[in-house]
Amino acid sequence: MNSALLMENLRSIPDFPIKGILFWDVTTLFKHPDCLREIVDSLYEEYKDAGITKVVGVEARGYVIGAALAMRLGAGFVMARKPGKLPAETWSESYTKEYGEDRLEIHCDAISSEDVVLIHDDLLATGGTVAAVSRLVGRFNPQKQYMGFIISLKDVPRVEAFPEDVETFSLLNL
Amino acid sequence: MNSALLMENLRSIPDFPIKGILFWDVTTLFKHPDCLREIVDSLYEEYKDAGITKVVGVEARGYVIGAALAMRLGAGFVMARKPGKLPAETWSESYTKEYGEDRLEIHCDAISSEDVVLIHDDLLATGGTVAAVSRLVGRFNPQKQYMGFIISLKDVPRVEAFPEDVETFSLLNL
Repeated sequence: MNSALLMENLRSIPDFPIKGILFWDVTTLFKHPDCLREIVDSLYEEYKDAGITKVVGVEARGYVIGAALAMRLGAGFVMARKPGKLPAETWSESYTKEYGEDRLEIHCDAISSEDVVLIHDDLLATGGTVAAVSRLVGRFNPQKQYMGFIISLKDVPRVEAFPEDVETFSLLNL
Repeated sequence: MNSALLMENLRSIPDFPIKGILFWDVTTLFKHPDCLREIVDSLYEEYKDAGITKVVGVEARGYVIGAALAMRLGAGFVMARKPGKLPAETWSESYTKEYGEDRLEIHCDAISSEDVVLIHDDLLATGGTVAAVSRLVGRFNPQKQYMGFIISLKDVPRVEAFPEDVETFSLLNL
């Protein structure tokens, strides 16, 4: 994995969205063809033998790499969305973020108990968001859950532990 | 292009998000590995010789195919986002939809005048959204703009004409 390429093109923005937060701006990676490819290729290498059948992307930055990775893996792509956005019957979970509260929903027919699921978001900070997505995915009783990120923040305390059987992986640990 | 595969797996939901709207639910295509691949492959075939250097996806469903297509084309991916979501300096445009008003933003450094740009959203209805994105993209004075969709609705009147030099294409005309 070419970490140097990604670090050279990753941008950080102080005090966004609120004062005191250093925001890692992955849009500068997405717009760079070599970085986009490097991220998808590197996550593909990590998961190519895991038997992933569904990638769940977290709204909205998680859709960018999530769907491209699903295609590379021969898996389907599932959107975890903000409330009211999915048109059919959903399951819903609330969560607390660094800067606010929110809910995420998944269509009740999006995943089956036969699936091996990879949850993807761009960045792991407190983990509140993906913990909620993991609870949602858990309701489908899938074969296994993985979590894969572009960036993981080492110095941000997690709001809750992930289940022990959920393996997490990040390309960059900052 | 295997239209039958896509039509068999596309779901329609009456009266979403408001009464009188028939909502075409592409999430049932995204979750199906063969449909996901068919959509990206078919759009790739359409644009592979167009010299696309940036794909602009419209929040949020436009990110799913947009980024996967950008990777296939060897292009970069740019997010057109709802207000306040992008952390660096942005340009902004407002637009009117079938059911409400909204704004979209693009980072001021996301595109250059050297770029050939493909704007992607899942569905073309009144066209208000992508017309706003096209105006945003136009500020960068790119070499050329294209617009590519999964679905185009024939019977919905467009709110405004697109510029004549912007070529549009859809996989399914419903």
